[in-house]
Amino acid sequence: MQRASDSRTATTDSGSRPRVVVIGAGFGGLRAARGLSDVGVDVTLVDSNNFHTFQPLLYQVATAGLDSDDVCFPVRAIVRRRPAVTVRLGTVTAIDLQQRHVTIDHDHLLTYDYLVIAAGSVSTSFGIPGVDEHTFPLKTLNDALALRTHLLSLVEEVHASGGVEHDLGIVIVGGGPTGVEMAGGMRELLDKVLAKDFPHLHLDRVPITIVEAANRVLGAFKPKLSQRAERALARRNIRVEVGVGVASVEPHAVVLKDGRRLTGQTLVWAAGVTANPVAKMLGIELGRGGRIPVEADLSVLGYANVFAIGDIANALDPNGTSLPQVAQPAIQGGVHVAKQIAGRLAGQPGTPFAYHDKGSMATIGRNQAVAEFPRGLLLSGALGWGAWLGLHIVYLMGFRNRANVLVNWAWNYLTYDRGSRPIISIPTNVLKRSETR
Amino acid sequence: MQRASDSRTATTDSGSRPRVVVIGAGFGGLRAARGLSDVGVDVTLVDSNNFHTFQPLLYQVATAGLDSDDVCFPVRAIVRRRPAVTVRLGTVTAIDLQQRHVTIDHDHLLTYDYLVIAAGSVSTSFGIPGVDEHTFPLKTLNDALALRTHLLSLVEEVHASGGVEHDLGIVIVGGGPTGVEMAGGMRELLDKVLAKDFPHLHLDRVPITIVEAANRVLGAFKPKLSQRAERALARRNIRVEVGVGVASVEPHAVVLKDGRRLTGQTLVWAAGVTANPVAKMLGIELGRGGRIPVEADLSVLGYANVFAIGDIANALDPNGTSLPQVAQPAIQGGVHVAKQIAGRLAGQPGTPFAYHDKGSMATIGRNQAVAEFPRGLLLSGALGWGAWLGLHIVYLMGFRNRANVLVNWAWNYLTYDRGSRPIISIPTNVLKRSETR
Repeated sequence: MQRASDSRTATTDSGSRPRVVVIGAGFGGLRAARGLSDVGVDVTLVDSNNFHTFQPLLYQVATAGLDSDDVCFPVRAIVRRRPAVTVRLGTVTAIDLQQRHVTIDHDHLLTYDYLVIAAGSVSTSFGIPGVDEHTFPLKTLNDALALRTHLLSLVEEVHASGGVEHDLGIVIVGGGPTGVEMAGGMRELLDKVLAKDFPHLHLDRVPITIVEAANRVLGAFKPKLSQRAERALARRNIRVEVGVGVASVEPHAVVLKDGRRLTGQTLVWAAGVTANPVAKMLGIELGRGGRIPVEADLSVLGYANVFAIGDIANALDPNGTSLPQVAQPAIQGGVHVAKQIAGRLAGQPGTPFAYHDKGSMATIGRNQAVAEFPRGLLLSGALGWGAWLGLHIVYLMGFRNRANVLVNWAWNYLTYDRGSRPIISIPTNVLKRSETR
Repeated sequence: MQRASDSRTATTDSGSRPRVVVIGAGFGGLRAARGLSDVGVDVTLVDSNNFHTFQPLLYQVATAGLDSDDVCFPVRAIVRRRPAVTVRLGTVTAIDLQQRHVTIDHDHLLTYDYLVIAAGSVSTSFGIPGVDEHTFPLKTLNDALALRTHLLSLVEEVHASGGVEHDLGIVIVGGGPTGVEMAGGMRELLDKVLAKDFPHLHLDRVPITIVEAANRVLGAFKPKLSQRAERALARRNIRVEVGVGVASVEPHAVVLKDGRRLTGQTLVWAAGVTANPVAKMLGIELGRGGRIPVEADLSVLGYANVFAIGDIANALDPNGTSLPQVAQPAIQGGVHVAKQIAGRLAGQPGTPFAYHDKGSMATIGRNQAVAEFPRGLLLSGALGWGAWLGLHIVYLMGFRNRANVLVNWAWNYLTYDRGSRPIISIPTNVLKRSETR
């Protein structure tokens, strides 16, 4: 880091400091901004939210296990002690790689010397009819709150109208960690929490089904762990349909490619993501899933001053396989590109990104998780769950959030209860009022 | 309580148990339902929210000091261990005192033998033009979240558009505890928290003004405490305009009766409340502020089996003055009417309600509150603040909420920081989805 320090000293005239724009304050963008905060550049971090979202725990917000505020952290507070970094709240509406500028909200130009694209991914329907209209995605904090409001309102409606538990069926499309964790979280919410609130409804009998096109859930894990997860799901009365795709979605049913209709009042779409549409603004040919093709050093093909990291980048491992769209490649990519930019400034050539797989985890519920670590270490059951809890606390941002999550998890575990779970819907006139300015 | 216990034993056939409907799950309604849960009656508790709101701390949600979930508690969890109490989520749309039934959501009838009306109060414009359109009230959790979203978005907008701190003016109408606590909370949010996030805006210079029609703030307190509060507000650079009413409200200004216009981008209405419109459904003559006239035992004039408590009731103290519309009269009223109904069942005459004033408190901010207790004990400054903190924790419902509030307050106090403060707006299509069922 001697080089970086020299670089800063050499450019005390901030007017002449190179300008870096980082798009996205997710895991990757934050690490990049942090790494760039002391290498003698001015960084502008752009995000459409004023908060960083800890996406791995969104399913707990949707199932009322955590408060919405626990899984987010204010972006401005993160970079507060880094004067080289400024935050711009806004949506990227255009990128011009030739002129080297990014347009925010159609009317504000940010010019750059270096650009880091870390805009992540969005839920995609893969073009399947009815998905956008009739299913709940789970990629954003608003998604999680919308799903929570829907679930809690639905149980109240069924209770008030004298309905039965089969009016509450849940179908989750996608057997990856998000789908499996949602299913487990919903089963606990229904069986352990709401069952006490609605003693006349047999909420433990609400049908929950996971649909997965591959031939097992948690396809990114070792087959042994998939089997354990499927057994744990079966014990929780969660049905798993593997090896069958979705043909279409109707208002209250998922239609499978084999012709079967799985009815439900809550349809969750956890089947996959595609690169954030920001990628299309580059005007270059994109890879699988709309991801941006990158060189070994994570610079965008043909643009040595532009980098793409995380879910939006099509970085490859040594076998030529795309890296998984999870937190670790983004975090490590952010650290890497900050070093690349510092290196460019010092006239050094790029160095290749080497991804270190730290493992994967998914929890099915209380005392039950599967975890896969390097060197073939596999954990499941209570041990896996302990690892899951510990690592999520460690990676969560901010002391206050960690303390609150610990309080809530301890409460949930000891009492089999959940948080305040208010049914809230912020009236849209908030936005209207703001627009009258 | 021997009588109550006998009564329960005598009516094990639940079909013959008297039916009590309690309207409202606020401080009063919850106490009434709790008191009635073991006296041999079936209780239906009706509320339009699935949660009880701890209104005294709503201003902290609006100013990002606490999470929304910390100040509410699920109604069904409160009555879970009281099988005599069932909860009906819904809005009361009609009350028929002759036929003895309450209509929920236009289509569901609840018949009663005894009725407890504890629907509280709502914010009122007093007919002043522009109030409903251009000011933010602060009576509900949604109000608090809407105001927080507005405030945080506005600072971002002013920052993005190159505006200055005077584009952020705040005018609060009403110098009671709500107005004073809001002003203090907003000053701390601006000076201590957002000032660090937006170092180029001089947020400590954002003008905050309290307008109060009476000749001092905190008119319900001893004049000495009002003076101390006004000095504390002045030290925090909060302007106080007393002795002048509001003529009208424009999109970005409060027009005073003396002709002056106080401009601001955030206009808060904390000037007063009126009884919940449920009172009008009784078809009887109402008292001042739309409140329901009650006998000494809190039964509604002319209806010995109907009771009104809390903000919606016009209960009088021995001097003939209406009781204040705060938590204590509601709490004590709820305990009292439960006993009255048990007494009626046992053939006993009504007994008069004796309100015990336990004091009043209001905080201006960090280390600063005024508190007035019986026997002339007055506290202010850090001592008052300690009392304020302690009693709010004690009265807050639920261990989990208390633990979370303690964590957040400790964090806020030690770091001069606040919570995650996400700008969120739940899309209205949540409700649409639910309606498609």
